[in-house]
Amino acid sequence: LKVGKHVPVPKFQALTIRTEGAVLFASIDNPPINLMGPALVSDLVSLIQFLNSTEEYRVVVFSSANPDFFIAHFDIVKAPEYRVAAARLTGEASAATLLRHLSEVKAVTIAQISGRVRGLGSEFVLACDMRFASRERAVFGQIEAGFGLVPGAGAVQYLAHLMGRGRTFEALLGANDYDGDLAERYGWVNRALPDDELEPFVFELANRIASFPREGLLAIKERINAITLASDADFRCDYELFGKLVRQAEPARRIRVMLERGMQQLSDTELNFGQALREFDK
Amino acid sequence: LKVGKHVPVPKFQALTIRTEGAVLFASIDNPPINLMGPALVSDLVSLIQFLNSTEEYRVVVFSSANPDFFIAHFDIVKAPEYRVAAARLTGEASAATLLRHLSEVKAVTIAQISGRVRGLGSEFVLACDMRFASRERAVFGQIEAGFGLVPGAGAVQYLAHLMGRGRTFEALLGANDYDGDLAERYGWVNRALPDDELEPFVFELANRIASFPREGLLAIKERINAITLASDADFRCDYELFGKLVRQAEPARRIRVMLERGMQQLSDTELNFGQALREFDK
Amino acid sequence: LKVGKHVPVPKFQALTIRTEGAVLFASIDNPPINLMGPALVSDLVSLIQFLNSTEEYRVVVFSSANPDFFIAHFDIVKAPEYRVAAARLTGEASAATLLRHLSEVKAVTIAQISGRVRGLGSEFVLACDMRFASRERAVFGQIEAGFGLVPGAGAVQYLAHLMGRGRTFEALLGANDYDGDLAERYGWVNRALPDDELEPFVFELANRIASFPREGLLAIKERINAITLASDADFRCDYELFGKLVRQAEPARRIRVMLERGMQQLSDTELNFGQALREFDK
Repeated sequence: LKVGKHVPVPKFQALTIRTEGAVLFASIDNPPINLMGPALVSDLVSLIQFLNSTEEYRVVVFSSANPDFFIAHFDIVKAPEYRVAAARLTGEASAATLLRHLSEVKAVTIAQISGRVRGLGSEFVLACDMRFASRERAVFGQIEAGFGLVPGAGAVQYLAHLMGRGRTFEALLGANDYDGDLAERYGWVNRALPDDELEPFVFELANRIASFPREGLLAIKERINAITLASDADFRCDYELFGKLVRQAEPARRIRVMLERGMQQLSDTELNFGQALREFDK
Repeated sequence: LKVGKHVPVPKFQALTIRTEGAVLFASIDNPPINLMGPALVSDLVSLIQFLNSTEEYRVVVFSSANPDFFIAHFDIVKAPEYRVAAARLTGEASAATLLRHLSEVKAVTIAQISGRVRGLGSEFVLACDMRFASRERAVFGQIEAGFGLVPGAGAVQYLAHLMGRGRTFEALLGANDYDGDLAERYGWVNRALPDDELEPFVFELANRIASFPREGLLAIKERINAITLASDADFRCDYELFGKLVRQAEPARRIRVMLERGMQQLSDTELNFGQALREFDK
Repeated sequence: LKVGKHVPVPKFQALTIRTEGAVLFASIDNPPINLMGPALVSDLVSLIQFLNSTEEYRVVVFSSANPDFFIAHFDIVKAPEYRVAAARLTGEASAATLLRHLSEVKAVTIAQISGRVRGLGSEFVLACDMRFASRERAVFGQIEAGFGLVPGAGAVQYLAHLMGRGRTFEALLGANDYDGDLAERYGWVNRALPDDELEPFVFELANRIASFPREGLLAIKERINAITLASDADFRCDYELFGKLVRQAEPARRIRVMLERGMQQLSDTELNFGQALREFDK
């Protein structure tokens, strides 16, 4: 595994990058609501390839430039295009495989979560090594059940491991919004912190870890993944099940109705998705 | 898997049924202390078969008609009869196999727990998909170690997964009573709620889930079970170990003594089982 | 498995023993900071062999005679000697194998933790069946990453199971100090208790468990271990990785520097190890 000593940071469309020593800060900036679409997926592919090709950055911190949304969810309208973007990494047009690669990237990844993070967005932060949430501003949700779908990119795998059967059933079947404190109690995040303490806390932790020898960090990451990261086959199984269900009549109808009601736009539907799903038939 | 559109709800002896839309509410009513004996086991078998034969009910809520007991524990005096009742489902006279079937039933199951739930009763709620407890009135206990026994119907499997090694050792070896708050901290239940909020909370959650498409719910349930439900062999192993130990002299003696002290009746022993086990030799 | 009815308690160098009924209390007393060196390792080997050879003691409680340190960490200076001591148990000169044997010892083990417990010390308490911590005085840390090392004696296995991926990444990569309350929230311990309640709580729990029939206790322990104890191969893999890394230049340099700064002595470095690692390069 030969990696160069200095590789220039690539250009990104939906990520704003700042580096400080061995820490790379990536702010997600994809207006209006940080959808995970072709631009962000393409950037993630480039970032993973970059981090695997350099020894310069030991820690990556993901945050959001949008105070209300960390990542809203995947861009349902542009699904074919983001699948093409995802395929660039592994030849496989799958968000599940992409996120599993993120879990194995040769740097420590930390999600600093303020704002809403739902569906594939929640799966993105679950694929990071650690998650810290704003007590006041973070909102978590796996909204798939509200459409008749299953999470397709790892939420079943990560959450079942992190929060156990009972709470995973509740989170996935209920498809409701969880605030930072409840997300901490359930294990969805490492900790919830007061909003004004979140960034300094993560900054210090990132710099602390980055001050330790790289080889030990990667060895620890490899061992934890060996024990806890679900197999490629498990990720693929979830993804194929999602793909099968999303082509059926009722999920397709619900997606159409929700798009008419403001899904994918800066709207009440996106701000209060848990409630919008509950009122679907009312 | 052909299932009829309308199948009449069967008659039950120890369950009172109410239905509302796609939610079936089953209240456990087996005086004086809701023992899990032949009547309740037979009803559970019928209910599981019914739920697997109809698409009408997406969610089942289990509660208790008795304010002090959800399910006291299994009926040790009528063990041969309830084993016959259990065998009706699978040909196997095993409470463990019965509860594993409950975990795989084709509906979402929620336990709304007020009152005491110990031994096989605790294993029953652990076999449900989700558990919510009254902060003031719920009491949890795996009392088997106090008799020289092991839990035989899944508690080892479910609790080790939900609360980890250390807390499972404590709960199973200590055989003491846990209130709702501690049960939440340990992961025995999803959440503990103030007693007067428990029913409205579960009612809303059940109706929320029941408003989502059935196929997605069942797909999610299947995936979570695929990852987290222990194997038939593991359940059988626990059950056989219980069966081996219960025939030995010291457990048999302790059961006799506890029966003389009020076990299986509405008594101080049943109300404060954790304390009664501690005072066994005093 | 023939075991004698009465076997005399062996003589120890670093453990002070008191017995009361079927409970054996072992106080760790290895001044100045309770390092896990040849004396303590040799005592643990003897204690494990003793407990496997007698039916007299059902429960062992480990505490510390030192108010500031439960077990500081392993004695890096005397590593060759403690490996010889460890080999006495299994022929394998490995702290990992030793601790895995502790997890399988034929008695229930409880760690009553006041003071600091880091590195191999933390792995020792993780190998016990249960852990209770002083809210005011307990401090937990896996300090290996600060040296460019990985935990070599089970921390990866136990913590990944107890606290899940995200919190294990944080604890192992951050190598920082955790107090009793945070250790409880993360699942590192069963519970944190006010310092003056810790000993009475553990005393009562130990006596409670010891009042139950031995065969049931051991059957429960065997079942929980069957489900949750990592394999010999996993323990060995961690241990070999530690052995490989500790011989490299940067970890060796960091160990030398930390020894010059007071590591292994009663010093600010040992009292505030998390901070000392952070200031390594400052």
